[in-house]
Amino acid sequence: MERAVAKYPRLYLFPLMLIMLAAPVAAAQNREVLYQVSTIDALLAGMYDGWQSLGQLTKHGDFGIGTFDKLNGEMAVLDGKVYQIASDGNVKVMPASATTPFAAVTFFDRDKVFQITKQMMLTELQAYLDSVLPTKNLLYAIRIDGTFASLKTRSVPMQSKPYPPLTSVTAKQPTFEFSNVEGTLIALRCPYFVKGANVPGYHMHFLTSDRKRGGHLLDCVITRATVLVDVTPEFCLSLPNDEGFYSTDFQPATEESLKKAEQDRK
Amino acid sequence: MERAVAKYPRLYLFPLMLIMLAAPVAAAQNREVLYQVSTIDALLAGMYDGWQSLGQLTKHGDFGIGTFDKLNGEMAVLDGKVYQIASDGNVKVMPASATTPFAAVTFFDRDKVFQITKQMMLTELQAYLDSVLPTKNLLYAIRIDGTFASLKTRSVPMQSKPYPPLTSVTAKQPTFEFSNVEGTLIALRCPYFVKGANVPGYHMHFLTSDRKRGGHLLDCVITRATVLVDVTPEFCLSLPNDEGFYSTDFQPATEESLKKAEQDRK
Repeated sequence: MERAVAKYPRLYLFPLMLIMLAAPVAAAQNREVLYQVSTIDALLAGMYDGWQSLGQLTKHGDFGIGTFDKLNGEMAVLDGKVYQIASDGNVKVMPASATTPFAAVTFFDRDKVFQITKQMMLTELQAYLDSVLPTKNLLYAIRIDGTFASLKTRSVPMQSKPYPPLTSVTAKQPTFEFSNVEGTLIALRCPYFVKGANVPGYHMHFLTSDRKRGGHLLDCVITRATVLVDVTPEFCLSLPNDEGFYSTDFQPATEESLKKAEQDRK
Repeated sequence: MERAVAKYPRLYLFPLMLIMLAAPVAAAQNREVLYQVSTIDALLAGMYDGWQSLGQLTKHGDFGIGTFDKLNGEMAVLDGKVYQIASDGNVKVMPASATTPFAAVTFFDRDKVFQITKQMMLTELQAYLDSVLPTKNLLYAIRIDGTFASLKTRSVPMQSKPYPPLTSVTAKQPTFEFSNVEGTLIALRCPYFVKGANVPGYHMHFLTSDRKRGGHLLDCVITRATVLVDVTPEFCLSLPNDEGFYSTDFQPATEESLKKAEQDRK
């Protein structure tokens, strides 16, 4: 064997190279899944302790939304980067070691493309999307790169224990208003049967085109945009291994508490 | 190189061997997932056309329950075999090419073991399980090998189009009564937030120990049993690529219709 080693050293690299080529193929993720950490009801109940690292989360997707350990800002995952929109509205890319208590991501594939060329309010935008999506009974990741005549977001500040419920936090949420802004909406649309696990209907986060400002979308007037839709027929839920989650007798979230947590104060 | 081939032929097998060893590890299924085909609401609405093969289904688990194309009997998946309990109560192993419109499976791991040594009615059995399971907020696969003083099952007959809703089928369901029977309950317990997707609470199918009779469990009196519990913290839902599913405006299943479809006629 010694002679072969000396004369044909590359023979010994060959197996390693083949494994390096084969392993990613064998371990390839299913791109058609919306992968979710924890449930919206757990988040509403104040379960803000991060338990899955962003490094682990992004093994399941490069596009999505969520929040961070201690409810420290809104999360937008775009092009594989995990952005934190802090409670001052400023944005930074978070490290793989940071953790999340709640997030949902998928690998974004451009299944459908639509152009928006006339001005729409948020309710009109959602009605338009409903009219072009193939069904209300699948999940969708939707990327909207556009120009907005006006836009309003919120973020959430880092919380301390004992954690208050989400509706108490959002009752005092800092909000941010934009006008004539370019940026990207990172949106999910979920069917009714995710209720308890996620938010049925639309849930959108925003990043400006320079990725420096953003937040959880409360309202907007969109002027023109390119809408990319990823049709997602699978939904995977990963539940926390946590005594607080185990022992809580969840009351299914009412429409009212979801509305309070996710929408604007009226 | 020729000389090396002649003198050390095994060098060329080495990469292949390493890949054969590495690939199954890289592609290993996550055993902690309850994987589900379609939704209970779609089944309740009469969507009985099978669309996933049993060969594909069993890549996701060796234990679970469901039904077959055209609602042709109850399904019990046990030790990797897919049993059909036909509408006459007789059991056979189904081929990998058969299809299912609705099923939920996991790879069964014995996380917890309990012994039942005193007689219990079904409601008592469920209350006992609730008292020993760590939380109501995860999913469980539960295998109960035992002796039953009495036991009652049902099955469902193959349907023709236009398919009637499930409650119409179960209103005329054939039922089967057993006394002093040994066998296995193949059970799932799901949390409240699966509602719309699956059945919250317990859903049990039965096979006699000779695997010749069985059905969807309606009632039982259990005498003694070994209970094996697989704690399952992930839930993955795979939705049908089907025009009927796409176009249906699902009304979330009421407690009443689930009860009619899953429980005994009173």
